[in-house]
Amino acid sequence: MNFESIYNDCFPFWNTLSKSDKEFLCTHSSKVYFDKEQAVHSNTECTGLYIVKSGKLRLYMLSEDGKEITLYRLSPGEVCMLSASCVLQSITFDVYIDAEEPSECYMINAAAFHTISERVSAVKIFALETAVSRFSDVMWILQQIVFMSMDKRLAIFLYDEIVSSSTDTITMTHEQIARHLGTAREVITRMLKHFAADGILNVTRKGIYITDKAKLQQLTH
Amino acid sequence: MNFESIYNDCFPFWNTLSKSDKEFLCTHSSKVYFDKEQAVHSNTECTGLYIVKSGKLRLYMLSEDGKEITLYRLSPGEVCMLSASCVLQSITFDVYIDAEEPSECYMINAAAFHTISERVSAVKIFALETAVSRFSDVMWILQQIVFMSMDKRLAIFLYDEIVSSSTDTITMTHEQIARHLGTAREVITRMLKHFAADGILNVTRKGIYITDKAKLQQLTH
Repeated sequence: MNFESIYNDCFPFWNTLSKSDKEFLCTHSSKVYFDKEQAVHSNTECTGLYIVKSGKLRLYMLSEDGKEITLYRLSPGEVCMLSASCVLQSITFDVYIDAEEPSECYMINAAAFHTISERVSAVKIFALETAVSRFSDVMWILQQIVFMSMDKRLAIFLYDEIVSSSTDTITMTHEQIARHLGTAREVITRMLKHFAADGILNVTRKGIYITDKAKLQQLTH
Repeated sequence: MNFESIYNDCFPFWNTLSKSDKEFLCTHSSKVYFDKEQAVHSNTECTGLYIVKSGKLRLYMLSEDGKEITLYRLSPGEVCMLSASCVLQSITFDVYIDAEEPSECYMINAAAFHTISERVSAVKIFALETAVSRFSDVMWILQQIVFMSMDKRLAIFLYDEIVSSSTDTITMTHEQIARHLGTAREVITRMLKHFAADGILNVTRKGIYITDKAKLQQLTH
């Protein structure tokens, strides 16, 4: 496995590292596969840093009674830092990570990455900046939850889905959408019925077909 | 004004700076006073970095229609980094900051701090770590909003208030508490009535008196 060329592409600090530091990180790297819905990381473990090669990872919070809310999702080329939160001592919260699709990732062992980040400032700055940029994603979620009605949040979610997948169909179940948005399935089913009555979409057993994209987009404003 | 000794106390990187960098930061420093409820920072401006000397600052999000939610508050000795978010390019959200009490702060001009943080890694790492540690505070708020009932959130808020102020009285109005928690005044008034009926507190015109601290604490679990 040639980790060198992969890391050269996704780590801005890579060329500032010494040859031995590069070798050290590559030695502590592995390629991992996750099935759809397989757990990538849970709770307080400090697994390691993941780079998504293919597929999609979902980061979420989980309550004691099993409620969930999606914080953000990671696509190919993106780096998952919160699964190595022990590298960032200032992070004191726990997140869960699942593979939303079958996913291939590269993983660097957390302890190995930590060793290098303590010695090389550029590595530490990269780790912190990656975490801070996710802070912005989470603030957007918080803003939606506190200030927006659930129908607007659902419209934003559906619209983002069709834009990012470049199709007009969302194949998730109502239960899955509810978990993304931190609400109950019944709420989503009821709202989708309203959207359908307004001519925005059709709900079938195979999925949700968006029939009026412009109208859906209007609801997101 | 001797900023040197103040910065020596609150910046772990201070002694790694050159004499001229120290002088540069001190030259671009000032002491600022804020009245109770005065705006310290709003929206997208990049004011500068604040160090709270006395009083208390409150960071919050504001919706287009004037709804608020408190993210966290800063006490003496704490550093406010989000008012200098231009130093951290990865932060793309806006916060508002008010003085919750009459407050004295030291301020370092954002551009000056930015200049040094681009050149000295330890300064950049400090800025990022300060931001990331607040990420944890915001995750705690998000967790409360998504997973907890409003009565539990109110109990946590009241309990934190009496612990941090070391009194049994909370002199805020119901409106102020509602703004902290991102809800309506009526909701808070109704819940305080329930708490009063349960013998946990008394609501008077002067404030909220906690009469059964142990019972209040039980509600926070």
